[in-house]
Amino acid sequence: MQLGRVTGTLVSSRKEPLMEGMKFLVVRQIDVDNTDTASYVVAVDAVGAGVGEVVMYASGSSARQTELTKDKPCDAVIMGIVDTWEVDGETVFVK
Amino acid sequence: MQLGRVTGTLVSSRKEPLMEGMKFLVVRQIDVDNTDTASYVVAVDAVGAGVGEVVMYASGSSARQTELTKDKPCDAVIMGIVDTWEVDGETVFVK
Amino acid sequence: MQLGRVTGTLVSSRKEPLMEGMKFLVVRQIDVDNTDTASYVVAVDAVGAGVGEVVMYASGSSARQTELTKDKPCDAVIMGIVDTWEVDGETVFVK
Amino acid sequence: MQLGRVTGTLVSSRKEPLMEGMKFLVVRQIDVDNTDTASYVVAVDAVGAGVGEVVMYASGSSARQTELTKDKPCDAVIMGIVDTWEVDGETVFVK
Amino acid sequence: MQLGRVTGTLVSSRKEPLMEGMKFLVVRQIDVDNTDTASYVVAVDAVGAGVGEVVMYASGSSARQTELTKDKPCDAVIMGIVDTWEVDGETVFVK
Repeated sequence: MQLGRVTGTLVSSRKEPLMEGMKFLVVRQIDVDNTDTASYVVAVDAVGAGVGEVVMYASGSSARQTELTKDKPCDAVIMGIVDTWEVDGETVFVK
Repeated sequence: MQLGRVTGTLVSSRKEPLMEGMKFLVVRQIDVDNTDTASYVVAVDAVGAGVGEVVMYASGSSARQTELTKDKPCDAVIMGIVDTWEVDGETVFVK
Repeated sequence: MQLGRVTGTLVSSRKEPLMEGMKFLVVRQIDVDNTDTASYVVAVDAVGAGVGEVVMYASGSSARQTELTKDKPCDAVIMGIVDTWEVDGETVFVK
Repeated sequence: MQLGRVTGTLVSSRKEPLMEGMKFLVVRQIDVDNTDTASYVVAVDAVGAGVGEVVMYASGSSARQTELTKDKPCDAVIMGIVDTWEVDGETVFVK
Repeated sequence: MQLGRVTGTLVSSRKEPLMEGMKFLVVRQIDVDNTDTASYVVAVDAVGAGVGEVVMYASGSSARQTELTKDKPCDAVIMGIVDTWEVDGETVFVK
């Protein structure tokens, strides 16, 4: 999984019918030291994440293993809101 | 999913029979601030996107989860036309 | 899918038995403006492509969705020979 | 598989129910000469790895082939703790 | 598939039980002109490759399509030993 910060929402009214009702979030990938990178992904939200929250997301076929995204054309899903992580014994991030 | 702008069409008359009748679009990947990147993808169109439109596309096995692309050798599918998105509280793009 | 130019052939006599009889082509990835990139892939040919031809190839699990490559350890397949494509209203390539 | 060094743990209390009880580790990818890279991944631990240990991890759908991660939205799993490896006849790493 | 040179072996005694008995090889990715790149992968050997040999390897779910790796947490498999390849009419490599 990669880490990201939810930076906003995305609206798509004309879309694959299977994606109806899903919430799309724009997620900026962050580095392990909690700094922004240039990469982003548009992910489906499976955990009720809000703008500004730091999250974990799964990519590829693993993004289809939540109840919400099963058998859907979805290649990125937010599957956890991050409380905290440590690197080399130091706490890098606390929610 | 990634964001892209449909920049043109592609014709392939000799192709895998399973791909018969599909519309191939050349999609330039765009960044979250709505600027072009150097990356592109040739994607199958599942939503009736036109040249110039900003779209979301899914990659990998997730590109085979639309009715159109099921069990086809397709690794990129346009599955949504984008109306608008926001980053850090500002609207970046409006259709 | 990505675009590539078939630059040559590859021979492998000791290989996974499931790959017996397959034609391996060395494909240089090309950009959307029809220039060579530094990337390449060794792909199985599902459409009878010849050296010099511009092709589309699918990667990952989608490369196993042709009759030829089904359930084989193959992660790249040529699934279309390209006739032409357009970018921003201009024809970039004609076969 | 890629090589990595476990650098820390990550806690996510609000997550996809299927991920309940899993241990998330922050893994810094290392190069074949045993130096750190800028890349990292958050991986589920399937082998009881500890902070500081050098591990192998599998990505994508292969990350769901352990008993622990089967059918879960997990795209990276630690599936081996590394004892030693050699490059060009020289031992690069010994646990 | 990508091309690589087997540069060494890797030993992992504590690993996912499904991976028991597999031979792990450190493979340096090579370019189409037969020069080393900075990338490497740890791959399972399905064809009896030796150190120094030039091989093809498949990645992702395709790496699980050999008899040896079926349903295993393996994302890279050596599925062919390369005899020779050509680029633009010239032989680049002969075993």
